[in-house]
Amino acid sequence: MASSSLTPPEVPMELHAINRGKLVKSLLQHLTESTHPLHGFVLLQGGEEQTRHDTDHAELFRQESYFAYLFGVREPGFYGAIDIATGKSILFAPRLPAEYAVWLGEIKPLSYFKERYMVSKVCYTDEIAGVLHDEYKEQGKPLLFLLHGLNTDSNNFSKPAEFEGIEKFKTDLNTLHPILAECRVFKSDLELALIQYANDISSEAHVEVMRKTTVGMKEYQLESMFLHHTYMYGGCRHCSYTCICATGGNSAVLHYGHAAAPNDRTFEDGDMALLDMGAEYHFYGSDITCSFPVNGKFTSDQRLIYNAVLQAHNTVISAMKPGVNWIDMHKLAEKIILDSLKKGCIVVGDVDDMMVKRLGAVFMPHGLGHFLGIDTHDTGGYLEGLERPKEPGLKSLRTVRDLQEGMVITVEPGCYFIDALLAPAMENSETSKFFNHEIIGRFKSFGGVRIESDVHVTSNGCKNMTNVPRETWEIEAVMAGSPWPLDKSSIHSENGREGK
Amino acid sequence: MASSSLTPPEVPMELHAINRGKLVKSLLQHLTESTHPLHGFVLLQGGEEQTRHDTDHAELFRQESYFAYLFGVREPGFYGAIDIATGKSILFAPRLPAEYAVWLGEIKPLSYFKERYMVSKVCYTDEIAGVLHDEYKEQGKPLLFLLHGLNTDSNNFSKPAEFEGIEKFKTDLNTLHPILAECRVFKSDLELALIQYANDISSEAHVEVMRKTTVGMKEYQLESMFLHHTYMYGGCRHCSYTCICATGGNSAVLHYGHAAAPNDRTFEDGDMALLDMGAEYHFYGSDITCSFPVNGKFTSDQRLIYNAVLQAHNTVISAMKPGVNWIDMHKLAEKIILDSLKKGCIVVGDVDDMMVKRLGAVFMPHGLGHFLGIDTHDTGGYLEGLERPKEPGLKSLRTVRDLQEGMVITVEPGCYFIDALLAPAMENSETSKFFNHEIIGRFKSFGGVRIESDVHVTSNGCKNMTNVPRETWEIEAVMAGSPWPLDKSSIHSENGREGK
Repeated sequence: MASSSLTPPEVPMELHAINRGKLVKSLLQHLTESTHPLHGFVLLQGGEEQTRHDTDHAELFRQESYFAYLFGVREPGFYGAIDIATGKSILFAPRLPAEYAVWLGEIKPLSYFKERYMVSKVCYTDEIAGVLHDEYKEQGKPLLFLLHGLNTDSNNFSKPAEFEGIEKFKTDLNTLHPILAECRVFKSDLELALIQYANDISSEAHVEVMRKTTVGMKEYQLESMFLHHTYMYGGCRHCSYTCICATGGNSAVLHYGHAAAPNDRTFEDGDMALLDMGAEYHFYGSDITCSFPVNGKFTSDQRLIYNAVLQAHNTVISAMKPGVNWIDMHKLAEKIILDSLKKGCIVVGDVDDMMVKRLGAVFMPHGLGHFLGIDTHDTGGYLEGLERPKEPGLKSLRTVRDLQEGMVITVEPGCYFIDALLAPAMENSETSKFFNHEIIGRFKSFGGVRIESDVHVTSNGCKNMTNVPRETWEIEAVMAGSPWPLDKSSIHSENGREGK
Repeated sequence: MASSSLTPPEVPMELHAINRGKLVKSLLQHLTESTHPLHGFVLLQGGEEQTRHDTDHAELFRQESYFAYLFGVREPGFYGAIDIATGKSILFAPRLPAEYAVWLGEIKPLSYFKERYMVSKVCYTDEIAGVLHDEYKEQGKPLLFLLHGLNTDSNNFSKPAEFEGIEKFKTDLNTLHPILAECRVFKSDLELALIQYANDISSEAHVEVMRKTTVGMKEYQLESMFLHHTYMYGGCRHCSYTCICATGGNSAVLHYGHAAAPNDRTFEDGDMALLDMGAEYHFYGSDITCSFPVNGKFTSDQRLIYNAVLQAHNTVISAMKPGVNWIDMHKLAEKIILDSLKKGCIVVGDVDDMMVKRLGAVFMPHGLGHFLGIDTHDTGGYLEGLERPKEPGLKSLRTVRDLQEGMVITVEPGCYFIDALLAPAMENSETSKFFNHEIIGRFKSFGGVRIESDVHVTSNGCKNMTNVPRETWEIEAVMAGSPWPLDKSSIHSENGREGK
């Protein structure tokens, strides 16, 4: 069994204390600017364990993301408060019944949570109203800043905390959400270290999977190897999202791998694989896609599409720095892909004309990338006031912001041959002329290629946090058995199989 | 990397047609006996995909269990109906938006589901009211039998189907649940074959894990190996429940392994491991516990406790056959364990006296076993009219029924040293005299042992569906590298390490 060069790192709980400090600072600044009084409590309700339908089957609990950000608590049933005047943090733990000790484990004293989570105070959830009233130093009903706001990826609203006695408080549902969502956009060094670790173990697992892929396997076997590597050696019990292990035509399905399309195809010689898989470590995730031929050797068609996407990926990363707008990056990727498709005689005509007709969205219907953090599609994509574009492709962008230092964003250009988009575009009188109808027939069951890395925007550029073979010759070398990173003796050769 | 002797079997969808037929037969019989009219539709609503809190993170969907039983549908968002007069079955599929084809995969025609799931007809979910009205051959509002009833393991109620136009129907909330729950208790041959497969791959994975366990590993690494083996080689994407990988003192926590106690201990030389893990295949599960010393060699204390539990396990299985009452089996296991503890000088006095004082429940606070099927704690444990016992230990029984042919039930005696139970029992004036206070101190951090197999009740006895090393010498041999099942050259020796 393969092992790993990595060891799961200790999780520094200061990370969440720093997150809380950042929120309080932002909130105070906002309240000062809007001449509101500078007191009250941020109050968040953590997630609850869920059972499956009417049964007692408990789904493995993963903390609600905003709560995880501020408190880092892994247990269900908690609440957390922050006194914005003092920065004092209070956790409220559920009062567990005596049987808990027999069935679920030691009932930990409140001091355990105080120490573990580095908060000022820990009480029970049935004490929230009393404790917050006692803590409040002002006249009248204490003010609670509750979390209520739209998630622009799901179109769902976060649920404000509810507890017995809430009527004894004033509540503010508008202030907290945009400020907290915005705090999460800019990663601290401690957060970056966790995202880097999630990237390191996931990159290593991708290499491992790539190396063990052979014709005739089932797609889910690639998923299983990834999950195993990241858990066994990386200590990652959760993934950022359900693994997408798409081969052949399935690689044209952007979010393949769910229950109705469960990675269950047996793949064949000549197929491309598109593996979009990322592990999560202490709530912080990764999101990585590798595409490669399952038999370890690119055909010329595969090389053409792959290199089109790779060039887009690399060029975007070279251009990324603070101030650069994400729509421009998306269009840059589209243009490079269309240029390459034109060179490959798959499309014909003027690429600028194609851009005007949004032809890029036929081949890449998703956005170029999204913020990444505690959620895979992390918060802050659309600041209040920012409008989602309406045009094909651009409307799928999960953010349209200018890049700023501290953001972590995925760069994931793709090129797919999707019947449901190609057929109408090839018939449409405005766009039909751009297609080489004969050659494109050759790609009907090609599927697609996506190349995705997680990129940290720095003060004057960016850093790619993902480390997997990207050049076609690197992939071929690694699949033929070369170590990763390639050692010098492999690098002289463009043919990995010879370099072995 | 180890491989497997098993291959994931084809799933016969007749299984669900047979389940439907069985339900209709039971329902008609019940209606006939209660002189109700013999028409109407059974209508069930399948599960919906859930997202995590406000985000677009989709949890991997697993079908609601009653719906899975009758229709075997893996996709979310379905409804299913059965015309009880004709046995005709109708699935209602969600009408998917055009973007689905780009993001989530081909939009399958209704004929695909008709063929795959072997039903009489497939329509869209927005057609339920119309279709059922058209199908109804009687006068007046059609009658719907909806699912509403108590799950006696969770104390939750199943949710009756809801759909637009339901006011145009008469609904019956009382009839269906007890009848359908009871149908699930008795497994058909096709169901048994799936449970057997889940047992086979899980047994093999347990052996694999046992063999690879070494001092100094983390508990979750055992979980990871199990998950990987059952998915990679067995095609099992789900487990029946979250893996319990408890070592040392953690093995006294009955449901260890959840988010607040996440299998994260590094285990040490001299620890026992208690691994309760079972894979699920096409909804049908397994539930297997192995206990063994992590260093591969039992100490005399470990052997004492282990053999007490093993003798209980084996004696119960030898006694199981139709007509035997489950409370009696529970007490039989308790008595054998107490007898052994007495022989080991851990308890003293008359075992019958101990039984009267329910001393067995101090060492085994859970029930002896539970029905197993599509749910880990499967339906039908308490028929209407059956009362849950009130006494310690017995009150934890998930069923108190007489065994009948076709039941699948776990046999899982255990013996644990749980402070929260031992301390009060050792102080209690009624029970204090039974404990050898000195010797029991030696077991303070022992944890516990559980041995769990899945047993099918046959016409004249029972069959153990689980196949893992159980005798201490078998475990030692397998952990030392012997194949499983042991070959003849190993079997002559009681010491596995020599037999290698």
